[in-house]
Amino acid sequence: MKIELLCTGDEVLTGATVNTNFSHISQVLGDAGLDVVWGTTVGDDRDTLLEAFRLAGSRADAVIVNGGLGPTVDDLSQEIAAKAAGVELVFDPVWYERMEAYFQKRGRVMPPTNRKQAMLPAGAERLDNPIGTACGFALDIGRARFYFTPGVPREMKRMLSDEIVPRLLARLGRPGASVLKRFHSFGLGESRVDGMLAGVESLAPEGTCKLGFRAHYPQLETKLNVRGRDLDEVQRNLAPVEAEVRRRLGNFILAEDDGRLEGVILDALRARGETLCVAETFTGGGLSARIAPLPGAESVLLRSVAARSLPQLFDAAGLPAEEAPPEATVEAAASVAARLRARAGASHALGVLIQLDEGEDRIEFGGTVCIAIAGTAGVVTRRARMLGGREWIRLGATELGLDCLRRLLQGLPIDERIDFEKD
Amino acid sequence: MKIELLCTGDEVLTGATVNTNFSHISQVLGDAGLDVVWGTTVGDDRDTLLEAFRLAGSRADAVIVNGGLGPTVDDLSQEIAAKAAGVELVFDPVWYERMEAYFQKRGRVMPPTNRKQAMLPAGAERLDNPIGTACGFALDIGRARFYFTPGVPREMKRMLSDEIVPRLLARLGRPGASVLKRFHSFGLGESRVDGMLAGVESLAPEGTCKLGFRAHYPQLETKLNVRGRDLDEVQRNLAPVEAEVRRRLGNFILAEDDGRLEGVILDALRARGETLCVAETFTGGGLSARIAPLPGAESVLLRSVAARSLPQLFDAAGLPAEEAPPEATVEAAASVAARLRARAGASHALGVLIQLDEGEDRIEFGGTVCIAIAGTAGVVTRRARMLGGREWIRLGATELGLDCLRRLLQGLPIDERIDFEKD
Repeated sequence: MKIELLCTGDEVLTGATVNTNFSHISQVLGDAGLDVVWGTTVGDDRDTLLEAFRLAGSRADAVIVNGGLGPTVDDLSQEIAAKAAGVELVFDPVWYERMEAYFQKRGRVMPPTNRKQAMLPAGAERLDNPIGTACGFALDIGRARFYFTPGVPREMKRMLSDEIVPRLLARLGRPGASVLKRFHSFGLGESRVDGMLAGVESLAPEGTCKLGFRAHYPQLETKLNVRGRDLDEVQRNLAPVEAEVRRRLGNFILAEDDGRLEGVILDALRARGETLCVAETFTGGGLSARIAPLPGAESVLLRSVAARSLPQLFDAAGLPAEEAPPEATVEAAASVAARLRARAGASHALGVLIQLDEGEDRIEFGGTVCIAIAGTAGVVTRRARMLGGREWIRLGATELGLDCLRRLLQGLPIDERIDFEKD
Repeated sequence: MKIELLCTGDEVLTGATVNTNFSHISQVLGDAGLDVVWGTTVGDDRDTLLEAFRLAGSRADAVIVNGGLGPTVDDLSQEIAAKAAGVELVFDPVWYERMEAYFQKRGRVMPPTNRKQAMLPAGAERLDNPIGTACGFALDIGRARFYFTPGVPREMKRMLSDEIVPRLLARLGRPGASVLKRFHSFGLGESRVDGMLAGVESLAPEGTCKLGFRAHYPQLETKLNVRGRDLDEVQRNLAPVEAEVRRRLGNFILAEDDGRLEGVILDALRARGETLCVAETFTGGGLSARIAPLPGAESVLLRSVAARSLPQLFDAAGLPAEEAPPEATVEAAASVAARLRARAGASHALGVLIQLDEGEDRIEFGGTVCIAIAGTAGVVTRRARMLGGREWIRLGATELGLDCLRRLLQGLPIDERIDFEKD
C-alpha cells in the first residue's frame, strides 16, 4: 500500500512552525508496519491544495492530510476535498450537535463561524475527534482513500491511532490489533542494544513482531511493534518478547512506555514517603529542574543548591567553605550530599559534581563526573569520565546522576559501566 | 518565481529526524522575500527521487534539494539529478583536490568512498561548501533551476545564505545585497508590536524593507529584511528603520540579532566585574540553568538555591526557617535575595518566588510571581499575576525574572507592565 502524507498550512510551509506533525504521523505509521513513501507540504491556497490533492490521489493508495479543518477562512480542506472528489459540501447535523454539546459543556456559546466545521464533502466517512471541534473524515479522491486530520497535535495524534491506523491495517487484511511497546534505557548505545537483542523477535509467532530503535542522546528508546487478531492475541504474542527484552537489557531499562526517568524517581520516593535534595555544579540547576515542575514534586524535592566553585557549594550545603578541595572529587560530592541531606531533613541527597577539563570547547573536550547519593543507609559514590564537548557532558552527567538515583531506589547496582564512559 | 523545496532521506521521511532543515530553508528564503510554494519529502529511493525531480522540474522555476550528497551508497542526489537532466556524471578534479586538502588539514587520509562526492552531473555549476566534503551544485532539470545542498545543517545553512539566496535574488533582478535585522523582546504580544511598529517600513526607500515577526513564547522576534544594491546601501536603508524600531519598542528590546537574554545579563555583569546569586521556587533550578552552562558563567553565577517550601528556601539562603511566611510575597523574595547576596558575597541576587493557585492544572490556572533583586543600591521588587497553566507560568516567570535583572543592570525601570500580566 502506497501511503502519502500531505501537510497543509502557511505556518508549516513558511517554516514558522517546525513540522513535528509530519514526523509523528510517519513514525506512528512506520511503527504499525505502514511505510510512508511521499510527503507533500503546501500552504493555505485553493489552487495549490487542489493540485496537491489531485496529484496524491493519482499516485497513492492512501493519503493522510493534516490541517485545514478549523473554523477560519484559511481552513480550506473540506472545500477543496469536495472539489477534488467532484462532490458537494453538505451539512452534517450529527457533528453540529456534537460541537454544540462541546461548547455547552464548557459553559460557552458556539460562535457562528464554527458551523463551517460541520460541512463535509458528500459521502465522506466521519473520523471521530472526541477532544475538539474539527471533524475528521475519509473520502476517495482519484484512486486513493484520503484521511483528513486536524492540525492541533493532540487531536491529530488521537485520531491517527484510534481511527486511521486500524482502518489502514484492516484494508491490508492485517490482523486487527497492534501494540507499540517501548523501553527507555540509558548508558547503552544503539548498536550494542541491537546486538544484545538479536533474535528476540523470533519469540513471537513469525511476522507479528518488529523491533526498532530511536536514539535521542543520552537516552535510547527500544520499540516492539506487535500485531495479532485482537488485543488478547497481541498480548500473548508480546509477552515472551517483552520478558526477554527486560531480561537482556536488565538494569539499564529506566522506564517503559510513557514513563520518564524523573517520574520514576518521583514515584519511588513518594511511594515510600521519602524526600530528596540535589547539589550540582556545571549542570547549574538543570538536574533539579527536571524534577521540580512535576505535579507532586513539591512534597518530595525539598531543596536544591548549585554552584560552580566548590567553596560556594560547600557553604550552600552548610559545610565550611574552607574545607572544599581544589577540584571536584567523589569525596567532595559525598560530603556535600551528606551535609545537605541532614540540613534539609531529607531522606536522600544527590550530588553531581563535574570537573571540566581545561581548554576550549571541542568534540573531544572531556570532564569527570563525581556522583554521591546520601541515603538512609549511608553514602554511595560513582565516578565517570566523559568526552564529547561541554553540552554533551552536561546532558550525560544529568542523566547519569538521575539514573544512579533511580538504580539506588530500585536496589540495583549504581556502578555498571555505561557506553558513554571513557578512561 | 515559483520556488519548491525537496527534502530527501529516509531519516526525514520516516520521521526519525524532525525536518528542521525544511523550516530553516523556508524561513531564510521568506526573510529574503522569496516565498516557497511547495514542499516535497521523499526517501533514498531511485525511482521516487527521479519522479520527484521530474515533477518539481515541470512545475517550478527554482528547486532547492536538501540531502543525498554524502559518500555512502544511499546518497543518490548527483546520480538521479544527472539522470533527470539527461546528462552523464563527470569527475570534478577541482572538488577532488579540495576534499584531499580538507582531509590533509585534519591529518587524515581520504577514504576511497569519498571520490563519489566529486562526481557531478555534466554542466553543473559548483556551489561552494567551505566547511565540508559534500559539493553543492546547480543544474537545470525541466524548466527549473535546481540547487543541491548537503543534509548536514551547518553546511546547508552556509551554502543557502552565501551561494543560493544571492543567485535567486540576482535571477529576480533584485538589488544584490540584503540584511536580516532581528530584535528580541519580552512582554509584548505580536499584535501589539505589529500596531506599535505601523509604518516603520516607509522610513526606508519603497520596496526595500519588509517587517515580520516570529512568536515563540515568552519571547517575540521582530525581523526587518532590508535590501539594497550593495551592503553600504543596505545599511543606509536600514539605519532609519532600525533606529525607529529601537525607539518604539524601547526598554522591551532585550537583545538584537544573535544575542540572548542570558548572554546579555552575563556580559553586563562581567563587564562590571560583578556577580550573581539566584533563588527560585517553582522554576526549580530552571532559571539558574539558563545562565550556568554559558562560557564565562563560572566566575559570575556564584550560587543558586531552589526550594518549593519557603522554610526550606529561607534556610538554604541562610535565614531562619521559622521566619518564612506561609505564602510567597515580594517581601519574602526581598529577604531571601538580600540574605543570599550577603551570604555568597555576590554583588547581585535575583529571587523569583511563585505562589501557584490551588487546584488542577488547566488553561486558566494562575500564579503570582514575586521578584526581588538585591544589588549594590538596595533591593527592588516586582509582582505580577499570570494565567495560562503551570508550564506557561513557569516559562513566563523565568523570563520575567531574567528580564527584570537585565533592566536593572541597564538602568531601566523593572515595573513596566507586560501583556502576559493579568489582574
